[in-house]
Amino acid sequence: MSIIKVSGTSRTSAVAGAIAGVFRENKRAEVQAIGAIAVNQAIKALALAKGYLKEDGYEIIFTPEFVDVEIDGKIRTAIKFIVELR
Amino acid sequence: MSIIKVSGTSRTSAVAGAIAGVFRENKRAEVQAIGAIAVNQAIKALALAKGYLKEDGYEIIFTPEFVDVEIDGKIRTAIKFIVELR
Repeated sequence: MSIIKVSGTSRTSAVAGAIAGVFRENKRAEVQAIGAIAVNQAIKALALAKGYLKEDGYEIIFTPEFVDVEIDGKIRTAIKFIVELR
Repeated sequence: MSIIKVSGTSRTSAVAGAIAGVFRENKRAEVQAIGAIAVNQAIKALALAKGYLKEDGYEIIFTPEFVDVEIDGKIRTAIKFIVELR
């Protein structure tokens, strides 16, 4: 299962659609964001995706965790949201 | 139960302590943030609080929702995180 990577310029509705699509397929999704703007976009997308999936009868929850990722040879701290059924 | 309001200048560890404290008391907490920087601070605090509360034997989950709040006579959209036991 691929991780959905969110940037500060990601469109919220597009990310929400991706989250809902991956969740329907796998009953789980992972969403990763680095930096305040990207985290904010991710949260908005998660709130939207929660609504989409509720219409399908899924009640989802998310758990944030810190992960270190290497970008251009530098270690940065990302926030990863695990999306699961309640 | 009071809502924990997070701003962009809130200290993450202080917010995390407040979340853990309110949760221990009420088995529920509400955290509100407006704007990308504040949402990012809130998420970091929630991830830290999750760790604190795990040590106490609580597995917490959070659900984000959009709420409209009035600030200085203007309506702004905040994100509210409901913290509950899994």
